[in-house]
Amino acid sequence: MEIASMNNDEKPSTFFTKGLLWFKSLHEKIFANIVGIAKQFKKNAKDDPRRVIHSLKVGLSLTLVSLFYYFQPLYNGFGVSTMWAIMTVVVVFEFSVGATLGKGLNRGMATLLAGALGVGAHYLASASGKVVEPILLGLFVFLQAFALTFIRFFPQVKARYDYGMLIFILTFCLVSISGFRVDEIVDMAHKRISTILMGASVCIIVSIFVCPVWAGEDLHKLVAKNMEKIGNFLEGFGDEIFKSSEDITESKVAKPSLIEYKSVLNSKNTEETLANFAKWEPGHGQFKYRHPWKQYLKIGGLIRQCACRIDALNGYINSEIKAPEEIKEMIKETSMRMSIECGKALKELSKSMRKMNLPISADEHVTNAKNSAKKLNSLLKSRINNWEEINLLQVIPLTTIASILRDIVTCVEEIGQGVNELASLANFKTTKSSKEIINTNKMVVVEKIELSNNHVVITINEQNMKL
Amino acid sequence: MEIASMNNDEKPSTFFTKGLLWFKSLHEKIFANIVGIAKQFKKNAKDDPRRVIHSLKVGLSLTLVSLFYYFQPLYNGFGVSTMWAIMTVVVVFEFSVGATLGKGLNRGMATLLAGALGVGAHYLASASGKVVEPILLGLFVFLQAFALTFIRFFPQVKARYDYGMLIFILTFCLVSISGFRVDEIVDMAHKRISTILMGASVCIIVSIFVCPVWAGEDLHKLVAKNMEKIGNFLEGFGDEIFKSSEDITESKVAKPSLIEYKSVLNSKNTEETLANFAKWEPGHGQFKYRHPWKQYLKIGGLIRQCACRIDALNGYINSEIKAPEEIKEMIKETSMRMSIECGKALKELSKSMRKMNLPISADEHVTNAKNSAKKLNSLLKSRINNWEEINLLQVIPLTTIASILRDIVTCVEEIGQGVNELASLANFKTTKSSKEIINTNKMVVVEKIELSNNHVVITINEQNMKL
Repeated sequence: MEIASMNNDEKPSTFFTKGLLWFKSLHEKIFANIVGIAKQFKKNAKDDPRRVIHSLKVGLSLTLVSLFYYFQPLYNGFGVSTMWAIMTVVVVFEFSVGATLGKGLNRGMATLLAGALGVGAHYLASASGKVVEPILLGLFVFLQAFALTFIRFFPQVKARYDYGMLIFILTFCLVSISGFRVDEIVDMAHKRISTILMGASVCIIVSIFVCPVWAGEDLHKLVAKNMEKIGNFLEGFGDEIFKSSEDITESKVAKPSLIEYKSVLNSKNTEETLANFAKWEPGHGQFKYRHPWKQYLKIGGLIRQCACRIDALNGYINSEIKAPEEIKEMIKETSMRMSIECGKALKELSKSMRKMNLPISADEHVTNAKNSAKKLNSLLKSRINNWEEINLLQVIPLTTIASILRDIVTCVEEIGQGVNELASLANFKTTKSSKEIINTNKMVVVEKIELSNNHVVITINEQNMKL
Repeated sequence: MEIASMNNDEKPSTFFTKGLLWFKSLHEKIFANIVGIAKQFKKNAKDDPRRVIHSLKVGLSLTLVSLFYYFQPLYNGFGVSTMWAIMTVVVVFEFSVGATLGKGLNRGMATLLAGALGVGAHYLASASGKVVEPILLGLFVFLQAFALTFIRFFPQVKARYDYGMLIFILTFCLVSISGFRVDEIVDMAHKRISTILMGASVCIIVSIFVCPVWAGEDLHKLVAKNMEKIGNFLEGFGDEIFKSSEDITESKVAKPSLIEYKSVLNSKNTEETLANFAKWEPGHGQFKYRHPWKQYLKIGGLIRQCACRIDALNGYINSEIKAPEEIKEMIKETSMRMSIECGKALKELSKSMRKMNLPISADEHVTNAKNSAKKLNSLLKSRINNWEEINLLQVIPLTTIASILRDIVTCVEEIGQGVNELASLANFKTTKSSKEIINTNKMVVVEKIELSNNHVVITINEQNMKL
């Protein structure tokens, strides 16, 4: 006790400096926090500048709708119901046009239907006398809430009409129960529905006409981008894999092109959400109203399957392979070729998808990759001279790489078919180069004619081509 | 024209029968539709019976809240604001306790904060005169809508506070703008906030005390289930892979245990959502308030990585392997053992995780699998007699399977470590059998003592064990 008081008396300046230091460090901490948040703001805006525009659009729509309150004549028409317009804008305005349209239409339709039913329920209940009325209303509310909440679990409903179901429950409850008190129920329902429709219209108009963000376009770009990422990996892998041990120690840091494929593995959810939104969107740019969005999900699935194979392949990067030179040489060239040709094919497919052109040279690359696979097979069948010096353990990494790459070639071929199907479903343009091919006027021997989905595949025998 | 009229005159009965047929087919169609929908209802309820209970809970909560309208004294206290209680119940009530709590707390906090700020903004604006007031209010609305909409894009905010942000924008707009008209703004804010809090309380109470659905428990079970699925595949794969060609033609249909792993590949999103909800939940059952939910995401990621390898493996099921018997025998036994031991280890891990016991025998299975891998390595190093008759192409499928299985052993070991970390973080119980091991009173030679995260791993040498 004595010591403590002595310390307190003796060094008042230490206390002061301590306090000062604490204040200074707090000040610095706050400053660092502010700088950190500002940096995050900047990064967030840089990642996707459309986010800033979207925020401005929401601000604009809300300010527009709040005009109802400020102008006496408008306010007199709707009164407190104006609130519903603001509520609609806040809740309905989403990032993409599809999401906004989906929510807006869901809200509009559900409000109309539930409003009508609510008024009906109110009349039915009030006709049954003052005692039975609350019991009947309670029963209605309970039954519809139970049934619709259960229906919300249906996968088809959840994907597209979840919000509508929610609004139905809400509106039905509000209209039928409020009716128990408010006498002019029809007038109230009318005002509420018109303000909600107004709010939804403002959202939809601003969303479509001020720098629109189309979910369909995003999906289109995402699938093309994912294809490109896988293509980049395969091209890079071809260069990377058969490095000597010196090169390996040099490049310990993985190249970005060899990591970015990982994001593809978890893209399923984003793709499905975007496809659901895209279905609500009207035609825009190169996309018609009934663009085959489902086909994108199919292609996306194939790309993910390919990414899964690549993940298995990834373990072999930067691992030194000690196999004998003879076998190494045998497998190296064909494997590199398979990998690089697959990469080229995917990048070509991605490019032509982006531009919505028919993919031309992709098939060529796939054929090259398949030929390399065939060549590898025949090489592997051939006898090896000095087997006595080789053990299987050394050969395994090489053969595993080759085997996985062969699977990848099949995957890439399927992706190519998927893109071709998309091209025929969505009427992709024929580019100049493909027209050239059509106009070469050569005599060819047709090997096979297949009808797959909507397009005819004619296989010609190049060796027998007569000029 | 004549023919048409003749036909019409001649066969009036055909028309009638056609109409009758059409009506009959329509009737049948409608009936088939109703049966289909009823079947879907039944399936939906069977898939997860908690859905029915949840729907009943929503109905119950809504009926409870609507009592405010029916009872005169309650209604007189709050008036039209009672509507906000209903709205809160409809919007906040979610399937799991975590989601409901998260939404409820978000809504409550956001309403309080935004309400206070809205009142402040209203006074500030009204103090500046009748002309400037709407301009100032419009500016406030625009600025806060812009800033908060932008903040919603931050990943950390989006995961946990997205709904709160939305409600903040909504409440601020409603309170500050309504204030422009309604004079008794504080009274309105007070009534609205109390009804919202009441609605949120009803939701939370019903959600927690009537057959609660805990997101944390669901996450726990999901991760354990995924582990089991992978384990089932690996156990089944061991039996399936080295079948003779006769067996293959017999069992063309894939076993369910060999397909169900596919759902694991796309589980990331569900796991993250559940973990976010779980963070809101109070302690329940075996889980404390700050249960290490993050660790589940880590284990989930490792399981998915393993599933990816398995997807690569899956292509080799039902493919006839033509390798020479000598090599086949060499690889067969060790591969089967690796696969089966990995499967057992995963199933053991899954079981002990479900019961929240320390996993005991899992390490043993992993060690067995690793020993098999080592044995395979040494077998592969050994010379093979009749290399002249063998070509690499025949050997490739076998070696690829072995190689992927070796990767899987590493994956399973990592999963085991992840579960051990979880066990030490969440204080899993020591089971009877592990106590027995501790109490065997044997003299052992300790080979290695490691400190990994929070637990000590003591490796003992079994061969030198002295009894």
